[in-house]
Order: sequence, then structure tokens, then C-alpha cells
Amino acid sequence: MPRVTMPPPGTAAGIEADELPTPSSDLGRFTVTCVDYSPAQVEVHDVTDLDDFLTHHRPAWCSVRWIDIVGLSQMDVIRAFAVKYQLHPLAVEDVLRTVERPKSEDFPGSGDQPGRLFVVARAIDQRDGRLHSEQVSMFLGRTTLLTFQAVQRSDTEPIRQRIRTAGSRLRENDASFLLYSLLDGIVDRYFPLLEAYSERLEDLEEELLDRPSQETLQQIHAIKRELMLLRRAAWPMRELVANLQRDKHECLSETSQTYLRDVYDHCGQIIDLIETYREVANAIAETYISVVSNRTNDVVKVLTIIGTIFIPLTFLAGVYGMNMPIPENQSALAYPVFWAACIALSGGMLLWFRHRGWL
Amino acid sequence: MPRVTMPPPGTAAGIEADELPTPSSDLGRFTVTCVDYSPAQVEVHDVTDLDDFLTHHRPAWCSVRWIDIVGLSQMDVIRAFAVKYQLHPLAVEDVLRTVERPKSEDFPGSGDQPGRLFVVARAIDQRDGRLHSEQVSMFLGRTTLLTFQAVQRSDTEPIRQRIRTAGSRLRENDASFLLYSLLDGIVDRYFPLLEAYSERLEDLEEELLDRPSQETLQQIHAIKRELMLLRRAAWPMRELVANLQRDKHECLSETSQTYLRDVYDHCGQIIDLIETYREVANAIAETYISVVSNRTNDVVKVLTIIGTIFIPLTFLAGVYGMNMPIPENQSALAYPVFWAACIALSGGMLLWFRHRGWL
Amino acid sequence: MPRVTMPPPGTAAGIEADELPTPSSDLGRFTVTCVDYSPAQVEVHDVTDLDDFLTHHRPAWCSVRWIDIVGLSQMDVIRAFAVKYQLHPLAVEDVLRTVERPKSEDFPGSGDQPGRLFVVARAIDQRDGRLHSEQVSMFLGRTTLLTFQAVQRSDTEPIRQRIRTAGSRLRENDASFLLYSLLDGIVDRYFPLLEAYSERLEDLEEELLDRPSQETLQQIHAIKRELMLLRRAAWPMRELVANLQRDKHECLSETSQTYLRDVYDHCGQIIDLIETYREVANAIAETYISVVSNRTNDVVKVLTIIGTIFIPLTFLAGVYGMNMPIPENQSALAYPVFWAACIALSGGMLLWFRHRGWL
Amino acid sequence: MPRVTMPPPGTAAGIEADELPTPSSDLGRFTVTCVDYSPAQVEVHDVTDLDDFLTHHRPAWCSVRWIDIVGLSQMDVIRAFAVKYQLHPLAVEDVLRTVERPKSEDFPGSGDQPGRLFVVARAIDQRDGRLHSEQVSMFLGRTTLLTFQAVQRSDTEPIRQRIRTAGSRLRENDASFLLYSLLDGIVDRYFPLLEAYSERLEDLEEELLDRPSQETLQQIHAIKRELMLLRRAAWPMRELVANLQRDKHECLSETSQTYLRDVYDHCGQIIDLIETYREVANAIAETYISVVSNRTNDVVKVLTIIGTIFIPLTFLAGVYGMNMPIPENQSALAYPVFWAACIALSGGMLLWFRHRGWL
Amino acid sequence: MPRVTMPPPGTAAGIEADELPTPSSDLGRFTVTCVDYSPAQVEVHDVTDLDDFLTHHRPAWCSVRWIDIVGLSQMDVIRAFAVKYQLHPLAVEDVLRTVERPKSEDFPGSGDQPGRLFVVARAIDQRDGRLHSEQVSMFLGRTTLLTFQAVQRSDTEPIRQRIRTAGSRLRENDASFLLYSLLDGIVDRYFPLLEAYSERLEDLEEELLDRPSQETLQQIHAIKRELMLLRRAAWPMRELVANLQRDKHECLSETSQTYLRDVYDHCGQIIDLIETYREVANAIAETYISVVSNRTNDVVKVLTIIGTIFIPLTFLAGVYGMNMPIPENQSALAYPVFWAACIALSGGMLLWFRHRGWL
Repeated sequence: MPRVTMPPPGTAAGIEADELPTPSSDLGRFTVTCVDYSPAQVEVHDVTDLDDFLTHHRPAWCSVRWIDIVGLSQMDVIRAFAVKYQLHPLAVEDVLRTVERPKSEDFPGSGDQPGRLFVVARAIDQRDGRLHSEQVSMFLGRTTLLTFQAVQRSDTEPIRQRIRTAGSRLRENDASFLLYSLLDGIVDRYFPLLEAYSERLEDLEEELLDRPSQETLQQIHAIKRELMLLRRAAWPMRELVANLQRDKHECLSETSQTYLRDVYDHCGQIIDLIETYREVANAIAETYISVVSNRTNDVVKVLTIIGTIFIPLTFLAGVYGMNMPIPENQSALAYPVFWAACIALSGGMLLWFRHRGWL
Repeated sequence: MPRVTMPPPGTAAGIEADELPTPSSDLGRFTVTCVDYSPAQVEVHDVTDLDDFLTHHRPAWCSVRWIDIVGLSQMDVIRAFAVKYQLHPLAVEDVLRTVERPKSEDFPGSGDQPGRLFVVARAIDQRDGRLHSEQVSMFLGRTTLLTFQAVQRSDTEPIRQRIRTAGSRLRENDASFLLYSLLDGIVDRYFPLLEAYSERLEDLEEELLDRPSQETLQQIHAIKRELMLLRRAAWPMRELVANLQRDKHECLSETSQTYLRDVYDHCGQIIDLIETYREVANAIAETYISVVSNRTNDVVKVLTIIGTIFIPLTFLAGVYGMNMPIPENQSALAYPVFWAACIALSGGMLLWFRHRGWL
Repeated sequence: MPRVTMPPPGTAAGIEADELPTPSSDLGRFTVTCVDYSPAQVEVHDVTDLDDFLTHHRPAWCSVRWIDIVGLSQMDVIRAFAVKYQLHPLAVEDVLRTVERPKSEDFPGSGDQPGRLFVVARAIDQRDGRLHSEQVSMFLGRTTLLTFQAVQRSDTEPIRQRIRTAGSRLRENDASFLLYSLLDGIVDRYFPLLEAYSERLEDLEEELLDRPSQETLQQIHAIKRELMLLRRAAWPMRELVANLQRDKHECLSETSQTYLRDVYDHCGQIIDLIETYREVANAIAETYISVVSNRTNDVVKVLTIIGTIFIPLTFLAGVYGMNMPIPENQSALAYPVFWAACIALSGGMLLWFRHRGWL
Repeated sequence: MPRVTMPPPGTAAGIEADELPTPSSDLGRFTVTCVDYSPAQVEVHDVTDLDDFLTHHRPAWCSVRWIDIVGLSQMDVIRAFAVKYQLHPLAVEDVLRTVERPKSEDFPGSGDQPGRLFVVARAIDQRDGRLHSEQVSMFLGRTTLLTFQAVQRSDTEPIRQRIRTAGSRLRENDASFLLYSLLDGIVDRYFPLLEAYSERLEDLEEELLDRPSQETLQQIHAIKRELMLLRRAAWPMRELVANLQRDKHECLSETSQTYLRDVYDHCGQIIDLIETYREVANAIAETYISVVSNRTNDVVKVLTIIGTIFIPLTFLAGVYGMNMPIPENQSALAYPVFWAACIALSGGMLLWFRHRGWL
Repeated sequence: MPRVTMPPPGTAAGIEADELPTPSSDLGRFTVTCVDYSPAQVEVHDVTDLDDFLTHHRPAWCSVRWIDIVGLSQMDVIRAFAVKYQLHPLAVEDVLRTVERPKSEDFPGSGDQPGRLFVVARAIDQRDGRLHSEQVSMFLGRTTLLTFQAVQRSDTEPIRQRIRTAGSRLRENDASFLLYSLLDGIVDRYFPLLEAYSERLEDLEEELLDRPSQETLQQIHAIKRELMLLRRAAWPMRELVANLQRDKHECLSETSQTYLRDVYDHCGQIIDLIETYREVANAIAETYISVVSNRTNDVVKVLTIIGTIFIPLTFLAGVYGMNMPIPENQSALAYPVFWAACIALSGGMLLWFRHRGWL
């Protein structure tokens, strides 16, 4: 169940860089990776001495610098970057909250401060059979991309690999193309997940017709709920990508926007698939209910018919068990006649039931 | 159940300042607090002598004056402020009605009368286990903010505290930033409330699978209804904040609008959460119904089967209780054979039921 | 059930003034009231000699003339006004049809014919426990307002009273402010009606939990249907007021448009309340169904259990009533043992049922 | 069930005039009526010699020429008009398909070919108790109106009558006013149909509460389906009229657009009525289901209670019918005591059931 | 169930021509057909020597060249065309993915590279009783159309036929008219499919009222699901055609856009039909459920009544079977009186049931 925990109402919004705790030397579960590249050259190094890193300028040959910060618990590191890159306090708060809806915000530059595009994306993931969604916060400048995320995600590695490959489109393009590539990776994570859902739904449908059980229904309900969560995650991602692809921004190159159109198409397909699967899940749940209620109806109908046939016969047997003087009881033929009558009566009732279409 | 009581149809709308009853000296449950501040200085004082207060000008150092009027029963006080600040009669009526939808209205200045932005917000609150929503009416001028509310709310205190703190963003900024801060406080009140709902829903879901009862369902219905009311309150708040954040107004600074964007994001998250919880509540209610109807079906099915097995046996017993000459009744073996037949018959029926999947 | 009766398809639309029957002297249930006023002076008189009235010019001091025509059966009167004020044939037809949707139409002036705004509103009313909606047709010129309605409605009297009050806002303003005041009166009629619904719904809800009956449900259905009709009436009223408040028109003053904004807010609140009550009514109906079906389930379950316990016991009694040689029947202990067995059996079944959660 | 049959996929769209079969002399079930009129004069004549008709020019006094072609099976006639009036091949195809959605298309003129407005409307009709919808295709030029329809509809006669009436608005106006009049006639056909539905719904509602039967429900389903079809027909008619009334076109006069606004209002009322009737039909269907399920519940409950009361008594009778030594059976008082016990037991159970609210 | 399989997240999007495998001589299940035509001349030839084909220029008389590539497995062929016509990597990827939503994308020309319009359409088809949808990717230049598709579809043959026909509109027009013709063929494929659905639905409806069975319901569910898939395919086709018909593009002639308006109308009709059939299918499913539940109710009611009548009679018989001294048992009249009482009792109950309306 998604939840949002906020500071108590009335506290100031936004986090100024100097409100973050002062630097400490502990880098803990924190990794800062700096990737500098240009069409000709590439250099990847893990930052271990943060002060040293921040005071040095980037190499002259470098056309794009990507600083990837993984782990959000070391406030001093965040503080150092917020000061260095003059990040807006509201954006810093959003980075740390990690429950933001996907969105893009433009913080236009003024004077010596360069303009930045702040992008919040949500990457979806399935761990231990449960859906997780991780926030990825990105600050895009003209030649720099800062990414903040809580945990290392597996889909950044292929992107680094593509950066290392000389001549790749990623290597030839600017920082906004890197932003595009990261978003593309995040969005494409939906596809294998959805494929898994489509398989589970097909299995459930088969199971349903064979042997419908209460658990089947509960699994369908679970899938419906997860698809609902996926949809809630996918819609704002589409909005985000639509904005990025459509609106001009000084930091977004035209090439990147052409490629973002492709991501936008993928978002559309994802939402289409989610909607289709939701409708399929609904249809399966409906079928389940009609199958089960049909079966129960059949059971009850047949049992009621059996009962109904025997109740009049029992009455008849009761009559001849009465202790009053009954003429029939004197006859030796009474017994076989009784049985014959019983058989005739029940046979007649069965025929009548069949005639009425109740059997 | 929300209700709106209005004066009888046909009475004039709007309340002119001089239509309000004349001043009396009784300030009753009425508190007027005046907060003057500038980046350098701050002064908070409760107004006790209203006439004296209204005739004096604000101190020269003061860059923002916030007059917070709590309690709406003293018409003479409202009248005094309406006259002093030339409030529009329609706005005065809205202040006193306290059932308005959240909205912002621009009363543009003309000649000597300065332009004002009139903002009506609704603060949500839970008292005695029931939802309440309080109207907060605000008049924003260039350097003045007037706030009217019926009761003292707890989230204004942290804001005063932030004003008292030298160097806080609130202190450094203008009156529209104060308006933003109050709206931020009002909107953030939704989050703890929603967290409580999410906990209750999780508890109910667990309870449901363990021991479904009619009360569980009624609690779910109650939550659905409260969420419906929350949604009805949250949507126009979002519209209000969207308007404030988007439309230029002489009294709204650019900084405040940047920060209002943050409040707008929170409104979006709140509506997202409400929708999610509503869907979850619906899903729980559906599950409840399917669990209960499944259980009833099971009960009825099993009981019907028990009945059905014994009815033919009872018929058989009735047959041999008849007082007619029955050959079998002469044999000493009849009794054990009868029992054997009964056991065989009921066993056969049980097997058949199992074979048909009815057990 | 709302119905619209039209002339047969193919007949010409619109009614030219000279197509109306020629004047007769019978003024029947027809009242024409003329109210002339200016900030300084006011004069109200019932028109009895129509020809005389129409040939005379208005007094020079008069800034607004309001002619209120009540009763639509005297075609000659309508004709006289249509000729005098050059009303458009389509508008005349709409006045007489009285089943129009609320709307405003601009008939721009040309040459000597002044421009007019034609406004159709629907006033809602409850008579004899049933909802009625009356059409009020208004022609607004620069200094004249013509209103046509079928019956005298109670909410025009307070407005005349306000005109008679020297210094009232209504008296100080122009003809469009009178139009606004009439619309305000019409819209505010919804509030007491809605308050009555909210009370009935609360009563029904209480009744439902105490002693649910078929009539309760039918009352809820009736309320839902009436709310549906109210909604169908309220939506176009909101559209109408939205248009009037937003679009510039030569006959609408800026002050009137500011006040119409207030009417627009009321329309919004009315629609909000209607939607809320509809959802509440739906929720009550759902609760009713779940309460009733729960109760039926409980009844059927308990009765089935009682039946099920006795059926095996009856079988047992039947066995020992058989006329075959049964060893147990020889023993004097058989009877008490039989009872003990019966009690044990039924007790065991009850325990088992409770263990399974069926009781 | 609506169906659309098309030529096989891949065949060319549009029908060039010379693709239509060559002229033959057989005019069959085809009628071509030519109405020439001006304010001063009118002439109606049935065209029998088509070639002669097409080669002659219209009389000089004629301000509007209306050619009404009824019957679409004579391809040579269509061809002759298509050639003469240079109709666009796509429009000709639409005329012949007769399953088009209502729409208006502008074929702008070029060089010697005058611009034309092509309008497709659907007239609704009820024949043999079933709904039919006929396509009416109209080509509007500056002074000419061509109408194509498959069958003679009854609502064109009153329009011809109005043309014959000297001084009628229709006679005084241009060709677009004739178009308006035809559309008005088509739209007004909905009202008597809807009135019939409202009567049927009221009858059904009454019938429902008196003696609900399966047929009642099926009739309600039938009405819902017909209303659905009506709605599907009415919506695009409204769109069509909205476009005509709003967009400027060289062939549409301002007067006609003012009158089309009236048709647009009628379309709005029709859609309102349809929606209301649909909701009413739904409400009736819901009430039916709740009435029937209530009745079934009552039946089953009462019958179950009767059964439940007698089952324990039968057990008791069975006990005293056992052939084992039973002390009570020796007493002469046993029989009256047994009856008393039975009466007490059943009375007690009835009281308990009533106490539990089951009766 | 629709599925989309993508390369693993993080891999680069788009396929550069030189990333495709190098040419091989195997042309396999691949067919490349080149159609050159002008109003005067036409030439169709299958390309067997690809290199030769690509190095030669088109004949001078040729005004439109259509290259139709069927089969997407030969990467080297795709590569050759991608290089020759400078296709954008993202478009090449979309061609090969074959799961794209219908869309049109403009790749504007720059320098020596001509502008192209990239169109993805989905053709619907029914093979082996299952719905298939095939992607058709088209690159439109000023005088060239490239089409890529996985399998040969039957609706391209009539189009080639029309090209071969001298004087056909297709032959007279430019490349965009060819694009229109292909889209028209694709869209018109929906009509025969929908006609089949309408027949199946009518059959099912009839079957339902005669002999409702579980399979009927499952068939209805299947149709509903297929219609859902059709709708998902038809909506984006309509969007695509709407865009093409509305937006100006250097490669789209005005004539083609006029004709595309016709395709757009067809799309509207298709969606209308789909929605209607879906509603009809829903209505049939609802009727099914009400018919079945009515029938079950009837069965259960009648059987319960039979049971209920005999249970008291059985009790009575049980009473007179008791072995206690019963005075009635001494009388010879007891037996006929007993039968009379039974008949009276059951007759009375039947009358009462009928009086209550339960029979």
C-alpha cells in the first residue's frame, strides 16, 4: 500500500544546502561514480575523496560529465553537491523524499547560476515477488547530468557499457541524450514485468476452467491490484516523457527529443498493455464468478431434485406405517404394489423435471 | 453529511461593511493577532484595543503585516476590518458563510483602493474520530495578509515560529510567501490523515481474511465515504493552488509561485493517494463479498449434501416400518443387511458427489 | 417523467408577432407589473390598460424599467410586447414552449432595433411533495428587463422589496443587476430543497440500520431519481451563469458580472451537493442490499442447520420403527440409549458446525 | 442490429460520374421533383423528361431551386445530376452508401465549379413497430439545393406547403433556409418517438409494481437498446447541426444560422430526454431485480421456516413410532401430551423466529 | 493476449543501417516488388538482384515508385534500403519490432536528405478463427513509397490492379494517393469482420432465448474480448488517419487529404459499430444471467413448495404410526379421514401459495 510520510504540517518546505548536516568523512553505503566522456575519450572513476573531487575542474576534453550518486543517507554528500551545483532547496527536498510523482521542473538560470532541468522518474522493479518503485532524481545542465538514487539499479550498467563503446550514439551525443538513455532504460523495465503478468494471466485462465478455486480468484485480485499500481506509476511517467519530448528547453537537444518520442511511444504501449491486462483480469474474474455460481446452482438444483423425489415417497411409507386399520395392509400384494408405485412416481417426476428442462 | 444553509432566496448577496452590526466593546472568543516582520525585525502582539489598532499606521520598518482574525461571531470586528481594508461585500459574505468551495478571486484595485487577491481554502481536520473541514479566508495585498478563520488551528503556530526565526525563508520573503506557507500547512495536514487511513485499511484487510464480519464491511463503507468527502475537499484545493501557481498577479511574487508549485505537487500526491485508497477499499469490499458468499455457498452445499444423503435412507427405514406384510421383515438377517445397504448407499452417494466435484 | 411536446415535424419554427392571435380585452389570469426605478425614485404599477401602457413613453427620471409578465395564455398580450420590443420570432416561441433548457442567446441589434440578450432560466420548486421546474424567460436591453413566466413565484417579492428600499445595491445599479438578482433568487432556491434531501437521507440511513424494509429502498430510489432530475436542471443553469459571467455583452455591466461570479459559485456548490447526495444515496442503497442479503443468508443458514441436525435423527427413529426383528428393540435400555445418542449426535454436529465457523 | 456493408477492401473509394451506368429511359420507382420559388412566385413540377430538364436553364425569376430526388436505384439519374452539378466522387459514393454518419463536408469551388456544402443527415422513423433510420443527402449551392433520399418521407410535404404559402419565412429566404427547414423537420421527428417511449416506460413502471414478470424485464431491455440506437443517431446529428450553426460558409446565410441555433437547442433537448429515459429505464430494471429477488427471498424464507418447524416434530413422531419398549407409550395421556408438546414446540419456534425478525 | 517483447532494458534504441548484418545472397521468403508508374505508363517487376536494383536510377517517365518489401527476416535487404533511402534508425527499429501502435512520424529532410513521412498502420485479419493484426510500415517521400510488411496481404493485389488500369484515379495521382489507397484497403478490412460479428451475435441471441447454456455465455465473453482487441486496434488507426488528413505535410497532396477524410469517416463508423456490438454483447450477457437466474429461481421455488407440502403430511403420518394408544387409530374411518385431511391440507396450502403469488 503506497504511503507518503511528510514532516509535520507547518514546517518549511525545501531544504537549503546549509540546512543539511555538515560533512563527515564516512561515505558508508554511498557510491559516487563520475563518468566523463567525449566522442574521443572516456573516463570512469569512483569518487572516494569528495572534497578533492569537488574542488577540481573537469578535464578540458570532456564534453559530458555524469555524476551518479547512489544512496541517499549521507546528508553531507548531498549537501556538497547541492552547494557546488546550486541546486534549488525544493528540488533537494524532492530528491530526499523519494516518494515524488514523476515530473520535470525547470529551474531557469539567473546571473552566474546556469539553468537546470530537474527530472524525477520512478523505476519499477520486482524483488521477492513484490513490486517496488524506486525514485531516480536527475539534474540536467548543458554538459552535466547528476543522478541521485537510493539503490544501484541493474539497468545503468548497460548504459555505462554503451558509453565505453567508442562510436556509440550515446558517446557521440550530449548530456540530454544520456538523460534520454536513462529514461529509456527505466521505461523498458516495464516490458519484462508485463510479459510475466501476461503469462500468469494465461495460466490462471486455464486453471480457472479446469478447477476453479477461491485461491485462483484471490490471485486474480492480487494481479488486478498490482496492475492498478503499475498504471498509477506509468501514467505520470508518460506525462513526464510527453513534456520532455514536446517542450523546448535549453538543455535538451533536438536529437534527444526525437529519441524521447520513441520513449513516449513505449509509454503508450505500456499503458495499452496494462489496460488490456486489467480488462482481461476483469473478464477472468467475471468468468470465475459465473462458473462458480453456475456450478453451485447445478449442485443445489440436483440435490433439491433428489430430496424432492424422496419426500413424497417417504410420506407414502409413513402412511402405511400408521397403526390405524388400513385395508391395503391386509393384502399380500401390497408390498410389491407399493414398490411399483414408488418407482412409477419417482420415474414420473424425473420425466416431468426433464420435460421442464430442470435436469 | 455536508450541508449549505443560505439566507432565503431573493435576499441580496454580498454584505456591505455598514450592513454589519455597529461596533461593540465585547471581543469574546475573538482573537486578533498582528504579526509585523521584516528580515531584520519581528513583532507579534494580540490586538485588544481594536479602534486604537486600526487608526495607527504600521511601523516603517515592517515589510509584511499579517493580521490573523480567529472567531467569526463578532460582526463589529469584521466590520472594522472590512471598512479599513475596503473588502468587497461578496468577499465579506464568503468569509462569514464558511461553506465556500476553495477558490481564489481577484478584486483588482481602482483609484485609491489597492488590488487584493481573495483566497478561500479549506483545512481538513479529524476531531472526536470525525472529519471536519474549516474554512480559512485570506486577503492578500502587496504587504498585508488578512486571515479569517472560525477556530484556532494547530498548524499556524509552527509558521509563527518560523517568522520569529531570523534568517528563515519565510522572514526574508514577502506577504505572498506567507500566504504560500499557510496553504502549504493546510495541504500537508492531509498526509497524516491519509496515513491513518492506510493503516486502518491494512488492518481491515487482515481482519477480513481471518474473520469476516458485517462490521468489517460497515467500516469499509465508512472509510469509502470519508475518502469520498476528502476527495471532494482535495480536488478544489488543487484547482486553487494550480490557479495561484500559474496565473500572474501583482501580489504574488515569482518565488512564491515557485514554492506553490511544490504545494501543487503535494495536492497531486494527495489526490493520487485518495484514489488509490478508494480503489483498495473497493477491492477489499469486493473480496469481502466474494469471501462471504463463498462461505455461505460452502455451508449450504455441505448441509444440503448431508440432508440429501439421509432423505433416501429415511425413506428406506419408513418402508420397513410399514405395517403391511413385508417378506424381508421376517428374516433375521434383514436388520444387518439394512444397515449394510444404508452404509453402501450413503458411501456411494458421497463418492458420486466427490466425483462430480461437489465436495 | 420529463416530456417535450412539439408541433408536428415540418411546421415552421419561430412565431412572428403577427402570427399570434389579435388582441382581445380579456386579461384573465394574466398580470403585467411595471416597475420603474432610479436611485432617487421608484414606481410600481399593475398594467390594466395595455394599449395605453404601450403607447406611452417611460418617465424621464426612470433609469431601469422592469416589466414582469406572469401567465402565458393570453397570446394578444405577448403579441403586443413582441411587436413593441421587436422580439425575435424564435425567442417568442421559446417563451411560449416553456420546456427550454436554460440558455442565453444574443440577438444583436441592427439599425433602429436595439440589441437584446435573451436568457432562459429554470426555477426549481417543490409543490405537493413533487418537484416542478418553471421556465423564466428574460429579455435584457440596456435599460429594460422583460420577464415572462407562467406562474407567480414567491422569490420575486423580496426583490421588489429591495427595489423599493432606497439606497439598496439593486436600486443603485442598472438593468443587468436586476437580471443578476433574479437569477440569484432562482439559484438560491436549490439550497432549502437540498437541505430537505440531506435530512431525508439521514433519516433513511438511520431507519435502514434499525429496520430495513422494501419501502426504505423504494424511497432511496425515489430520492436518487429526483436528484438525477435536479442535476439535469442544475448543470445547464451553471453553464448559463458561466456564460453570462464570462462573455462581454453590451447590456451586461461589469458590476453585474462580478456578482454573477457569486451565483456561479453557488451553482458549483449546488452541483457538488447533488453529486455528494447521489453518492450517499448510492452508498445507502448498497448498504441496504448487503444488510438484507446478509440477513437472508443468516436466516437460511440457521434454518438449514436446524433441518440438517434433525434429518439424521429422524432416520435413526425410522430405523427403530421398522417392523423387522431388531435386537436393540428387545432391550429395556434401548430407549434411554437412543435419546443419549440423539443428544450426543446433535451436540457433536453443533460443535462441528461451530468449529467450521458456520454458526 | 446496425450493419455496414462495403465493397471488398482494396477497391477504389469514390464514384466518378462516368463510372455510373449509362442513362436508360426507365425512371421506375424514381421521382424527381423540382421546386422553383422566389418571394413572388412558386412552381412545382415532377420531372419526367430528365434530359430535357437538365439542358434547360432555370427561369430568371427563380431565386431558389430545390431538386428532390427520391429513390436511389436508378444509377443513370444520379449520373446525370452528378455530371450536371459536378458532384465530388466521394460525395456521390456517400449518397449511394446510405449508411453514413451524419456529417457536413465542404467541397470548395475552383474556377468554373461553384463551391458546395455536402450535408448527410439521418431521419429516424418507426415502421411496423421497429426503428428505421433513413439517410438524407443534401448538396447546398448558393441558389440550389439537391436532396437525395431512398424513400419519400412524410415530413417534406408540410415544407412544400410552406413554400407554396406566399409570405412564409421559407419563401422569403434563400436556399440555406430550405436546408435548415429540412433539418428542422428531421430533428423534430424525434419528439413524438420519445413521447411514445416515455409513455411505455410509465406503463412498464406501473406494471412492474403490480405484477412483475420476465416479459416486463425483456421489454425494458428492448427499450434500453432502442434508446441506445437513438442516442447513437442523435449525437452525430447534434454535431452536424453544431458545425453548420457555428462555421461560416459562403452558402449559409446568417438568418439560417440563427435558425439552426434553434435546431441545435432541439438536438440538445433530445439528447437530454434520451439520457433521462435511459436512466429511468435502468432504474426500472434495477427496481425489477430488487422486487423479484425480494419476493423470491420471502418465498424461500417462509417455506424454509415451515419446513424447519415440522422437521423436529416429525422426528418426535418417529421416536414414538419406534418398536422398542418406550415407557411413555404405555400411558393413555401420552397422545394428548404429545400434541400439546408439538403445538408448544412449533409455537415457541415461531415466536423465536419472530423475535429474531425472520418473519 | 497481446504481448510486447523488447530487448533488455538499457540497450540502445534505434537501429543504424550499419548495425544490421551485412548483405548475403539469400533472398529466402523475401519478396521485393517494384512498381513504377505514371499516368501514361506502368511497370511492375520483382526485384531479384538487389544490388543491381539499388544502383540503378528509376526510369525518367516514372512519376511514382512503390517498393513493396514483404518479409522482415532478411536483415541485409532492410539494411540496403535503410542505407539507400537514409531511413532514421528509430524508424528502422519500429519496422522490425512489428508491435508498434499505429502512428505517423515526420522525419524532416535536411541538406541532401529528403524529408519523409513514416507511417505505421495495423491491418486486422482473421486466420484459423483467430484475430491477427499485421504491422504495415510505410515511408512516404515525394515520389516514392516504401512499404514493409511481414506477410503478403490479400488487399494489396486489387490496388496493383488499379495501378495497372490506365486512367484510374490511383494512376493519375501522386505517391501520397497510393499511401491513401493502402490505408483505405487496410481500414476497409474491418467491415467484413464486423459483419461476421453481427451475425454471430444475432445467432447467439436467438440461441439464448431458446436454450441458454454455459457455452453461449462463454462465446459471448469471447466475442466481447475480441471486440475489445478490435477497439484497441481501431482507435489508434483513427488517430493516425485524423493526423494525416488534418496536418499539412510536404509529401501529402491536397487530393489525398480529401480522400483520407473518407477513410477517417470509415474509421468513425468502425468504432461506432464496435461500440454498438460491445453494448449489444453486454446486453445479451445480462439477459443471459437474468434468464438463467430466473429459471433457477423457478426450479428452486417449485421444488421447495413440493417439499413443503409433503413435510407436514409426513409428520401427520408419523403421528399415527406412533406406538402409543391413539384413539383415532381404533376407528375404521380413520384411514379415509386421514387421506381426506391430507388432500384438504395440501390443497389448502396450494391455494394459499397461489393466493400469495408464489406459484
